[in-house]
Amino acid sequence: MRDLTEARRPLSPEELAALAAVVGEAHLLVARDDLEPYGRDWTEDFRAEPAAVARPRTTSEVSSLLKLCSERRIPVTPQAGRTGLSGGALPIRGGLVLSLERMSSILEIDEANLVAVAEAGVVTQELHEAVEARGLYYPPDPASRASCRLGGNVAENAGGPHATKYGVTSKWVMGLEAVLASGEVLLTGGKTRKDVAGYDLTSLLVGSEGTLAVVTKAWLRLIPKPGAAAVVVAPFATLEEAAAAVAAISRAGLVPAALEIVDRPCVDVSFRKKGLPVPFPEAEARLLVELDGADDAEVERDVTRCGEVLLEAGALDAVLATDEAKRRELWEVRRGIGEAVRELGSSSELDLAVPRTELAPLVRGVRRIAAEAGLATACFGHAGDGNLHVHVYREGRGEGDEARFEEATRAIYAEACRLGGTVTGEHGVGVAARGVLALRHSPAVLAAMRAVKAALDPLGILNPGKALA
Amino acid sequence: MRDLTEARRPLSPEELAALAAVVGEAHLLVARDDLEPYGRDWTEDFRAEPAAVARPRTTSEVSSLLKLCSERRIPVTPQAGRTGLSGGALPIRGGLVLSLERMSSILEIDEANLVAVAEAGVVTQELHEAVEARGLYYPPDPASRASCRLGGNVAENAGGPHATKYGVTSKWVMGLEAVLASGEVLLTGGKTRKDVAGYDLTSLLVGSEGTLAVVTKAWLRLIPKPGAAAVVVAPFATLEEAAAAVAAISRAGLVPAALEIVDRPCVDVSFRKKGLPVPFPEAEARLLVELDGADDAEVERDVTRCGEVLLEAGALDAVLATDEAKRRELWEVRRGIGEAVRELGSSSELDLAVPRTELAPLVRGVRRIAAEAGLATACFGHAGDGNLHVHVYREGRGEGDEARFEEATRAIYAEACRLGGTVTGEHGVGVAARGVLALRHSPAVLAAMRAVKAALDPLGILNPGKALA
Repeated sequence: MRDLTEARRPLSPEELAALAAVVGEAHLLVARDDLEPYGRDWTEDFRAEPAAVARPRTTSEVSSLLKLCSERRIPVTPQAGRTGLSGGALPIRGGLVLSLERMSSILEIDEANLVAVAEAGVVTQELHEAVEARGLYYPPDPASRASCRLGGNVAENAGGPHATKYGVTSKWVMGLEAVLASGEVLLTGGKTRKDVAGYDLTSLLVGSEGTLAVVTKAWLRLIPKPGAAAVVVAPFATLEEAAAAVAAISRAGLVPAALEIVDRPCVDVSFRKKGLPVPFPEAEARLLVELDGADDAEVERDVTRCGEVLLEAGALDAVLATDEAKRRELWEVRRGIGEAVRELGSSSELDLAVPRTELAPLVRGVRRIAAEAGLATACFGHAGDGNLHVHVYREGRGEGDEARFEEATRAIYAEACRLGGTVTGEHGVGVAARGVLALRHSPAVLAAMRAVKAALDPLGILNPGKALA
Repeated sequence: MRDLTEARRPLSPEELAALAAVVGEAHLLVARDDLEPYGRDWTEDFRAEPAAVARPRTTSEVSSLLKLCSERRIPVTPQAGRTGLSGGALPIRGGLVLSLERMSSILEIDEANLVAVAEAGVVTQELHEAVEARGLYYPPDPASRASCRLGGNVAENAGGPHATKYGVTSKWVMGLEAVLASGEVLLTGGKTRKDVAGYDLTSLLVGSEGTLAVVTKAWLRLIPKPGAAAVVVAPFATLEEAAAAVAAISRAGLVPAALEIVDRPCVDVSFRKKGLPVPFPEAEARLLVELDGADDAEVERDVTRCGEVLLEAGALDAVLATDEAKRRELWEVRRGIGEAVRELGSSSELDLAVPRTELAPLVRGVRRIAAEAGLATACFGHAGDGNLHVHVYREGRGEGDEARFEEATRAIYAEACRLGGTVTGEHGVGVAARGVLALRHSPAVLAAMRAVKAALDPLGILNPGKALA
């Protein structure tokens, strides 16, 4: 475990009593064992220890906690599912963790207006199941959807495979209830689909990583659930051909619901973990394309056309799946990769994104830089969005030369930016990418962001050390 | 004409010389006749007079102008097409109008990445035509699209009929080049489809009505142009039935590209203007539904199903159009209404929006309030979005009692908010709705917006008196 604690802000008995008076003794955790899980998320081996954890049940409790922490300058780190991959929820400056896990009610599914209203602590998959039971659909589907919570999705502006067609979380948030550091409660939108009365505070808060306000409720846009879906998986001899096929799909007028890419090291480790032989082991890359639509006929037409396009683009094969069992089987390989690559050895996961056409140049650059540093890489991600997760690892779990490792990952981030891309596509800056934010944004843009931060959290108590720090 | 000038900030000969040195003598207008058109937009009969108009050609000129104006505390009102309906582009505090009309180049249409890059002065319809010639599609289509410019669309977060399916301008902006009051140039995004590196300044600037920065360039997301479209128009005996039909369409799983509503007074004046008899003159409301899709077969299936749904929901008739000539004819009635209602007499256009299910209650409330004040109304708008344009007018062009008129319009705004709605769905706050913004937002939300304004424009020189004032 790597302890990222940068500062400790212990809490006095008087402060602890005041916090406990808000949420009740039972929901203010202070014992070391109780605190331990709140010091970790899913980012590598990072940890950081809070002085206490408060688990409020209501917005009014959140407001009281923040007012207290403002008065006493106590750092506050909001947490939801703690499944983040950039360390955004780690309390690196100590103080209070504000966990929203108990605010976990789906308050309303308004079928006529196609809006769900849910608290920040609702597990994303629970919302999926609840709306799908009514024939509706909430597309954002981060890989951690069985454990992550809506508040975290909003804070990090989470993506996922279906963002390719449907867009990331921000496209689905119609309004937020959020609490400023001062304790003031904001309501930024609601069930009205068009609203240009003043600045778009909703979008400003989405993706702000808990540094501007604590989100307590969200109004989420829904659509009718697509009637049918199908998947096609295609191996390619080279990465260049796979990347070219992504463009060919778009040129053919197809709009995939998901368009995923995995490279050979990912596939190898994933099949090895399952104890299965790799089909087309010589393939350097594989694409997984999902198409959805109103009915089976539409989807079968599209998936057949997509298979043709992939074969014309040089695919070694094209495996189609229209029934759900087979679809799930094809997805399983892709979904298992995030977990499997951790077996490759001590690694960092870089969440790069570039314009779609720069995907092949990006992978080439990543491999060149890693090879020069004697490191290995495994890449997978959302090709339709140009979003590539790059695991940079030391083969054989050796600790190696830390400075060389850091230098190589920084060069990879720089390569993504040189190609017109960014240092994080969907995981957030958190602590993982804050050191490279200046590769992405000019001093003027960073200064504007810092001015916004100072305007809404003048004391700097909200999730200090994250995103912009 | 109603002169809205609240303050005059004359420019000294030295200031004019400094401004002219940036853009060239030919592009700094000071003669009264030259200034006159820059004192008007399409909002009712509003006007306001600037001291001068600068027409820069480059971002660097915009930056120099703003730096100058910051140093000298000169109010700056950015303008693009001046087609706004809330007075957002009127120089009500005098000073300089910064017109972006000469920055009118489409810089790139990147077919592989599905991105257009265009300057703020590009006329929206020119962009439509340029991308459609390549089989691509930029959905935002404000009614003024033949005259409005992208910079204005971005500033006001413009909507239009196709927002029902595709969303408003903000959903299509991937990045902006914008200049702060200080002259600092920001680049907030680009061709990368997913980017969570820091706060979403792009969305913050979209819809900020030129009060936070002057937008000079936009990166706009494109999609493949739908292969086919069809329209169905249906008259209903009552408004309630028409509103219920909107929900029925959605329940049937149909996702219209546009879903418009017009009430009887609108239809009457529109047909009268054309000298044509009104079909189904007893109908209190009409719906126009456009459906688009991949090909003719898909669209014919959907429009037929939609016609059935409308008839089941009580429509008196359902006229289908699949060929383009007939489609255009059906749209013409709807498109002519914005113009035609101006003939009804001296009026205010309220741009209300409510949750879709509250449309019928809203219209009932509007009529009740207007009737009690002895005023008439004509309503039309984007039913799929719950966005209703309400013309409140004095029959017979009488000037009437101004206080009573103001009181009635305020009560109508309040009714929209009571129903969970807002005081402007797509036109922007500008000057038209600034007096009622407090009906929509709590003091805490307004304070947060003002803090953001102060953070990015500390001297308050950008479009003063608009949106939040």
